[in-house]
Amino acid sequence: MRQVVFAHFLTRLPGDAIIEFDICGEDGRAVYHNDSITINSRGHLVFGGCDTVELARTYKTPLYVMDEVAIRRAARHLRSALEDVYPDAEVIYASKAFCTVAMCRLVDEEGLSLDVSSGGELYTALVAGFPPEKIYFHGNNKSPEEIEMGLKAGIGRFMVDNLFELELINQLAGRLKKKADIILRITPGVEAHTHDYIRTGQIDSKFGIGITGGQAQRAVEKALAMDNVELRGFHCHIGSQIQEIEPYVLSAGIMMDFISDVRESTGFTASELDLGGGIGIRYVESDARMDLPSLFAAISKTIADKAERHGIPLPRLLIEPGRYIVGEAGITLYTVGAVKDIPGVRTYVAVDGGMADNPRVALYRAQYEAVVANKANLRPTAVVSIAGKACESGDMLIWDIELPRVEPGDIIAVLSTGAYTYSMASNYNRFPRPACVFVSEGEAYCVVERETYEDIIAKDRLPGAIGQARPSAAAL
Amino acid sequence: MRQVVFAHFLTRLPGDAIIEFDICGEDGRAVYHNDSITINSRGHLVFGGCDTVELARTYKTPLYVMDEVAIRRAARHLRSALEDVYPDAEVIYASKAFCTVAMCRLVDEEGLSLDVSSGGELYTALVAGFPPEKIYFHGNNKSPEEIEMGLKAGIGRFMVDNLFELELINQLAGRLKKKADIILRITPGVEAHTHDYIRTGQIDSKFGIGITGGQAQRAVEKALAMDNVELRGFHCHIGSQIQEIEPYVLSAGIMMDFISDVRESTGFTASELDLGGGIGIRYVESDARMDLPSLFAAISKTIADKAERHGIPLPRLLIEPGRYIVGEAGITLYTVGAVKDIPGVRTYVAVDGGMADNPRVALYRAQYEAVVANKANLRPTAVVSIAGKACESGDMLIWDIELPRVEPGDIIAVLSTGAYTYSMASNYNRFPRPACVFVSEGEAYCVVERETYEDIIAKDRLPGAIGQARPSAAAL
Repeated sequence: MRQVVFAHFLTRLPGDAIIEFDICGEDGRAVYHNDSITINSRGHLVFGGCDTVELARTYKTPLYVMDEVAIRRAARHLRSALEDVYPDAEVIYASKAFCTVAMCRLVDEEGLSLDVSSGGELYTALVAGFPPEKIYFHGNNKSPEEIEMGLKAGIGRFMVDNLFELELINQLAGRLKKKADIILRITPGVEAHTHDYIRTGQIDSKFGIGITGGQAQRAVEKALAMDNVELRGFHCHIGSQIQEIEPYVLSAGIMMDFISDVRESTGFTASELDLGGGIGIRYVESDARMDLPSLFAAISKTIADKAERHGIPLPRLLIEPGRYIVGEAGITLYTVGAVKDIPGVRTYVAVDGGMADNPRVALYRAQYEAVVANKANLRPTAVVSIAGKACESGDMLIWDIELPRVEPGDIIAVLSTGAYTYSMASNYNRFPRPACVFVSEGEAYCVVERETYEDIIAKDRLPGAIGQARPSAAAL
Repeated sequence: MRQVVFAHFLTRLPGDAIIEFDICGEDGRAVYHNDSITINSRGHLVFGGCDTVELARTYKTPLYVMDEVAIRRAARHLRSALEDVYPDAEVIYASKAFCTVAMCRLVDEEGLSLDVSSGGELYTALVAGFPPEKIYFHGNNKSPEEIEMGLKAGIGRFMVDNLFELELINQLAGRLKKKADIILRITPGVEAHTHDYIRTGQIDSKFGIGITGGQAQRAVEKALAMDNVELRGFHCHIGSQIQEIEPYVLSAGIMMDFISDVRESTGFTASELDLGGGIGIRYVESDARMDLPSLFAAISKTIADKAERHGIPLPRLLIEPGRYIVGEAGITLYTVGAVKDIPGVRTYVAVDGGMADNPRVALYRAQYEAVVANKANLRPTAVVSIAGKACESGDMLIWDIELPRVEPGDIIAVLSTGAYTYSMASNYNRFPRPACVFVSEGEAYCVVERETYEDIIAKDRLPGAIGQARPSAAAL
């Protein structure tokens, strides 16, 4: 008798691997696994070939675990799916999803380019030895220091968000006797959400320059007239965690029309078109998965059709996935502490992390699946809610999930936490931020060390004023 | 001609000072000020006696600025208002609102006790030389290591959240041959929100032990039977940013009834009643301000009435304000970069910080007031929205605020940012976290240094595996 009893965390990794837990007989022993997640003979969840219970013991919890193989697989799947239908293309990893020195090195090894959105991400990339000419610098408000840092490093492209920045880059490049290659960020008036999208007439965004009203057109004219910038093309980004193809097709069409309009009015032919990121991943069972070949085929067809209709050459096509590359390649391990059963109301399972290491639930009401890592072969028996340990009632990780009986000391693995967790982590409640380990075919190695209490107070200063120069009574 | 034109940021600090900007004549020169905020002859916003534009120049932006005098004033106002009506009382600063070594030292100087919610906050307090016996240890899931740390330090009270923790503390105290003084956290079934409260029959919270269903009663019996804990009393906390007196009165009454019930059934008389924190502050003009004397008078009366009715002695009364002490005593200074006017839609003013240094807007849709610090004497001319610089459309600080004409290089002061900003700050986008300076009667001194890019990669490791032991082709 074969039974799929773990449908609540059945998931599919980028590429082709499907996680399925087919159970033989009544003992719940797992006999089937995929490349990233398995269950071993001890009934433990295995991730990237490593026993997660052992990982928790070795590295302590909370612990971010990323499967290096899954990251590389996603990167290669993106590249091949895109280049299959659009040879002159480039995949740019949006590092804000997860940016460490090791990750930058890995991205380079996989032949991807890198999107940075700050001096800190650029610094990390440079320390990693990332080729500067493959770095794309994003952000709606780059500081003069950040722009100079990019100019001096010789980065590939400045993604110019607005007219003020355009002037600033031109000025600073001139001062440094450099020419900055730029791409203008355009607001196409398409906004995609997880399950739908809207085409807005008005363009109300802190990012980019609107096509409507002629602002983008004027920005192009300005850029073309400048001495120290070289306009290469245009960029747009329509949202995050997008699970449908249509909004991408729509924005690709609008951008190609814009390229054509600009060519007609100025004679400038954009050689690069960047359609941004936002490709959705699977957090929970109900999340649809983006079919990459279909997505890229549809985009390619739109671009080719428009190019033919307008009589313009095909631009180099850039995409900027972040979450898609690391999201499902990561899990977070926690140790269970208090289990609080409120009869007739709810059972709270408290773990040793929460909103400090994963603010996405509090920020976006994000949903996750979880597995009891040391009981991965047991059937779910009850619905519980997983609470974080921050002194804040909003610090919940998962509401209402079916799990086997959970006890103090159990290890909980929250799935699909590779993106926007470590990168958004705080020291709220002065919790040290967790370590991050990469796993690869059964080997584990630390890429970010766990913070210590000493780290947390490292920037604290105790000036002489306190305890000595107390304010005068009059001031109080 | 006198005119109050800055009503949009008219505010009142804890204690008695009112910020009013009365303007003489048409030139907009400010002639009146309060103890914390003034405008000087250059038209600059002055905070704690320091020219904020100079502070921005000296310490760079973003910059947290806290007025030490305002913190001390709030602490003293709380103590005196409480002790005036309830002599046997204690004010405990909830350090999660803002916890640094300097702040802990200041709290001690003001004679307050300290609420910590983690090993990290406890560590900070101990480094600051805070008297351990005045430390109250909160949290719904203290780890064994944290409990041992508290036991060894000899902290004043463990605020016990649940039965698992009760057992754990008893066990660990026994092992260390200590007796732990504890207070049980009770869920009274009152939930207060900013503008209203509900009394819930059911008690669905990750915190505390419910009175209904007899769980709290059984926890008391357990605690009384234990060898290594000494039960001192009970705690409850009904919410955050509360602006009404009624929910406090209600919970005080319920807790006194519970103390009486426990006394009847077990003979144990609680000597301490902790009503938690949650006293609201003024973020924007529409926020009501809590009248402390009225609040404490109402609570005192309820406790006294209940004590008389039940024939029980008055407990020592504890309160745990955090936000109230630091919230309005802090401002954040930002430098304006890009100003993007989308005709007919909106003007975005981008500053050099945002959700990384203040996640409260993204987390809670929190609202703030702001002042153009270098144009503090100019009249508002237009409605703009203040955007952060994170690569995320949700990174907005203020929607729709009236300000004078804002230009690149201007300094924006966001008001009432002293609580839950630095303590919740992240390195999202790898932004270094800002410095924090205390100001006091015109003197400024750094209490938290600005992070550097080196700090951000300090925990990054680059294991040999990457670039050498690449996964086998088979794994991909």
